[in-house]
Amino acid sequence: MQRRACIIAVGNEVVHGFIVDTNSAWLAKELGELGFDVAYHLSVNDREPELTRRLKSALDEGLFVVTTGGIGPTVDDRTRHAVARALGVELQLDHDALAKLQERYAATGRKFPEGSERQTMRPAGSTHIHNAFGTASCFVARQDQGGVAVLPGIPRELEGIWGEEMRRAIIEEFGLHERWFSREVRVFGLPESDLNNRVQALLESEAAEGAILVDDAVMRLRWRVLAESRTQADEVLGRLIDAAKDVLGDLVFAEGDVSLEEATVQLLAEKGLTVACAESCTGGMIAHLMTNVSGSSETLIESAVTYSNDAKTRRLGVKPETLDKHGAVSRETAEEMARGIKHESGADLCVAVTGIAGPGGGSDDKPVGTVWLACAYRDDVKSWLLRVPGDRELVKWRTARAALNTLRLTALYGKLPETISHWMTPP
Amino acid sequence: MQRRACIIAVGNEVVHGFIVDTNSAWLAKELGELGFDVAYHLSVNDREPELTRRLKSALDEGLFVVTTGGIGPTVDDRTRHAVARALGVELQLDHDALAKLQERYAATGRKFPEGSERQTMRPAGSTHIHNAFGTASCFVARQDQGGVAVLPGIPRELEGIWGEEMRRAIIEEFGLHERWFSREVRVFGLPESDLNNRVQALLESEAAEGAILVDDAVMRLRWRVLAESRTQADEVLGRLIDAAKDVLGDLVFAEGDVSLEEATVQLLAEKGLTVACAESCTGGMIAHLMTNVSGSSETLIESAVTYSNDAKTRRLGVKPETLDKHGAVSRETAEEMARGIKHESGADLCVAVTGIAGPGGGSDDKPVGTVWLACAYRDDVKSWLLRVPGDRELVKWRTARAALNTLRLTALYGKLPETISHWMTPP
Repeated sequence: MQRRACIIAVGNEVVHGFIVDTNSAWLAKELGELGFDVAYHLSVNDREPELTRRLKSALDEGLFVVTTGGIGPTVDDRTRHAVARALGVELQLDHDALAKLQERYAATGRKFPEGSERQTMRPAGSTHIHNAFGTASCFVARQDQGGVAVLPGIPRELEGIWGEEMRRAIIEEFGLHERWFSREVRVFGLPESDLNNRVQALLESEAAEGAILVDDAVMRLRWRVLAESRTQADEVLGRLIDAAKDVLGDLVFAEGDVSLEEATVQLLAEKGLTVACAESCTGGMIAHLMTNVSGSSETLIESAVTYSNDAKTRRLGVKPETLDKHGAVSRETAEEMARGIKHESGADLCVAVTGIAGPGGGSDDKPVGTVWLACAYRDDVKSWLLRVPGDRELVKWRTARAALNTLRLTALYGKLPETISHWMTPP
Repeated sequence: MQRRACIIAVGNEVVHGFIVDTNSAWLAKELGELGFDVAYHLSVNDREPELTRRLKSALDEGLFVVTTGGIGPTVDDRTRHAVARALGVELQLDHDALAKLQERYAATGRKFPEGSERQTMRPAGSTHIHNAFGTASCFVARQDQGGVAVLPGIPRELEGIWGEEMRRAIIEEFGLHERWFSREVRVFGLPESDLNNRVQALLESEAAEGAILVDDAVMRLRWRVLAESRTQADEVLGRLIDAAKDVLGDLVFAEGDVSLEEATVQLLAEKGLTVACAESCTGGMIAHLMTNVSGSSETLIESAVTYSNDAKTRRLGVKPETLDKHGAVSRETAEEMARGIKHESGADLCVAVTGIAGPGGGSDDKPVGTVWLACAYRDDVKSWLLRVPGDRELVKWRTARAALNTLRLTALYGKLPETISHWMTPP
C-alpha cells in the first residue's frame, strides 16, 4: 500500500507572500525518498480554527501531515494547539524537554525568556524530537494510517532536525521497508547543456531514475532506485556512478553530499599543501567558502582581501606602474598578486583574482564580468581570462568557484592546469 | 466586505519538490496589494478530478482562485478542463485567439504544432487574457463573490501577463477601490522574544496588521493596512513605524528593504569613513558581505583574513608573546589585531574578530562560540566578549553581523558603542 503524505506550511508571512516557502519542496523530496506519495502542499495562516480544520481533514484522509512553522514562543504560534485539537488529545508540557531547554539557557548565562516554556508543549502520546538547532522542540504522532510531524519554519533548523532525528523517527514509526536510495556525483566546469549531452544515455537508463540538479554552475548528477536495502540499491547505482566518472573525468569533484569547497580543502589537506589567497573582486568570498569547511585552518594560511589599489601594492607588492599601465584588472596585476601573496605567506599554492563584479566599473574593453585569475605553484605562475556572466553576486559566486576549482585541479595533478572552467575565453 | 482569494499551483514537479514554487508568494503579494485577503496556497498534481474538487470547494467558499500551471499544449495539461467543470460550464475553443496564435506561427515561418489549439480553450462566459509572453492564452471568470483567473506556471510569463493585462482585468471585474499598503523596519541586536515583548502593544494595534519576520538575528517588523491611497495608509503606518523606532532606538538599522550590510556600508559612506577588517573566525565573511554592496569599494580598503597565528603576527603585528600568553582567542589578541589593521591600512575605523567557530577547538574555558570582537576608532580601542550560539556556519554568520553592527553604531554615534549585540556576555 502506497503511503500518502501532505505538507502544511503555517504562517502569515508565507501566505501573504513575504517569504517564499522553500521548505515544502525540500520536504516533498525527502518524503518521496522515504516512499511517501505527496498529495499536496498547503500554506495557511496561523488562525487556529482554520489550521485545525485543515489538519483534521488531512488526518481523516489517512495522510501523514508534515507541518512547518508556528511553533515558536510567541502567542501567534498556534501549530501545537491546532495539532493536539486535530488529533483529539490534550496538549501537555514536556517537563524533560523544558528542563533541558532551561539548562541550555543557564549554561550560556542567558535569562530564560518569558513564555518560552510554550516551545516544549506537545500532544499527549506524541514522540518528542530534539531540536539541536534552535529552541522549539518538535514531535511526531501516529493516527490510523497517517499522523503528524511538526517542524519549525526556519529552513536551516528544519533540515538539521530532519537529518538528525525526525527522518529516523518516521522510519521507525511507520516501519518503512522499501525506500528510495540515491547516489550522486557533483560536477563543475561545463554548461548544463553539455553535461546533459555527455551523460544522456546514462540518464535514460532503465535501471534507475536519473536527474541533473543544478545549483548554478555546480551540478549534481543523481540516480535513485527503489530498493529494500542499500546493498541492493548499490548494485545498480554503483555501475551508473562509475560510468559517469569515466565519461566526465576531472569535471567530477566529489561523490555524494560534498561541496566544491569541501572537496577542495580535503584534497589540499590530503596532499599536505598550504594555501593563501589574494582577492579583489571576490571580496573575501574564496576565504569565506574555504573557512566554512571545518579543519580548513590546517590548510589556509591567510587571504589578503585587497579591495583598494593601495592595499594591492602595500600587501602584495603589486607595482604602482603595473596598476597604472595595465589597470587593476589585467593579467599583469593578477600575476603580481599571485606572486606577491606567495612571497608574503610562504604558502605552497596561491590563487589571486581581480575583476569587475559590476554593476559599475565596466567598459567596452573590459565589460562587467571580466576576471583575471592567476595561480602560483612552486616556481610556476599561470593566469586565465574569464568572462563571467551574471550580476554582482553571481560574478563573485562564480569567480570564487573557479578559483576553488583551480586550487583543486592543481592539487590533483601536482601542476597548474590548462582548463579551469567554461567561463575561460578562447585563447 | 473583505474579498478573499487563494492560489493553486498545478504540477507534479512542484508537488514532488523538484521545483520550488516562487509564483505563489509573488501572486500573494500582488493579490494582497489589490485588497484580497489570501486564505491559502495549495500545490496539487495534475490529476483532473482532484483539481476540479479543490477548485469547486474554493469557489463554494466565495474565493477568487488564481491558478498557475497546467495550461500548455500537452495532454497532462488539465487546468482548463478542471476550471470549466468547477464553474459548471462548457469548455470552448476561442476561435479569435486560435486565429491569432496561428498567425504568430505563420509570421515566424514555424509550423503550428499539433494539439496547440488546446491552448486557446476557455470556459463559456470567461474573459480572454492575451499572453504576449508565450503561446498559452489565459482567462478570468467571475462566479458569485469570487471567481477564477488562470495563468501559466513559468514565472517570467506569469509576471508579464499579470502586469500587462490580468491585473487590470481583475480590477475591472471586481470594481476594486481599496488596496493593502505596508511598511517595515529592520532590527538587529536582541532575541526575537525580547523584540516581541517590547513591541507587543504595537503589534496588536487595531489600526494595522503587525508581524515579526525572522531571518535568524536579523528581524523585520512590519505593518500593513487596507487603504484607498498610499497617503491614507501612511497616516497609520507612519505612526506605527515612528513608535517602533522610539521603542527600539538604535536596534533599528533600516526602514524598508535594506540588509544590515547595505545599511552599514551606506552609513559609512555618508559619514565619509574608510574601513578595514582583520578577520580570523569569520574567515572573510565580513568583507564578503560588505563587498556584496555595490559601491563598497569607496569604503572598504582591505580585509586581512589572518587565519593562522603566523599571519596575525606578519600582517597585523600581533606579538608572538601575546599569542603565547593569552591565546589567539583573547581580548589582548583581538585588540592588537584591531590596532594592527588600523596602523597598516590607515583606515578610519577597523574591526577585528577572533573566535572559535567549531566544531573543534573549544575548551571548558573557551567553548565553541567564544568570540572576541575589537574595534579601533580614532585613538580608541574597545573589545567585547561574545558567546555566539550555533554551529560553525552560524557562528560565522552571527559574528559577521555583530561586526557589521559595531561598525554601524560607531559611525552612527561617532564613538565606540557600549552594546553591540545580545550575544555579549554580562560583564
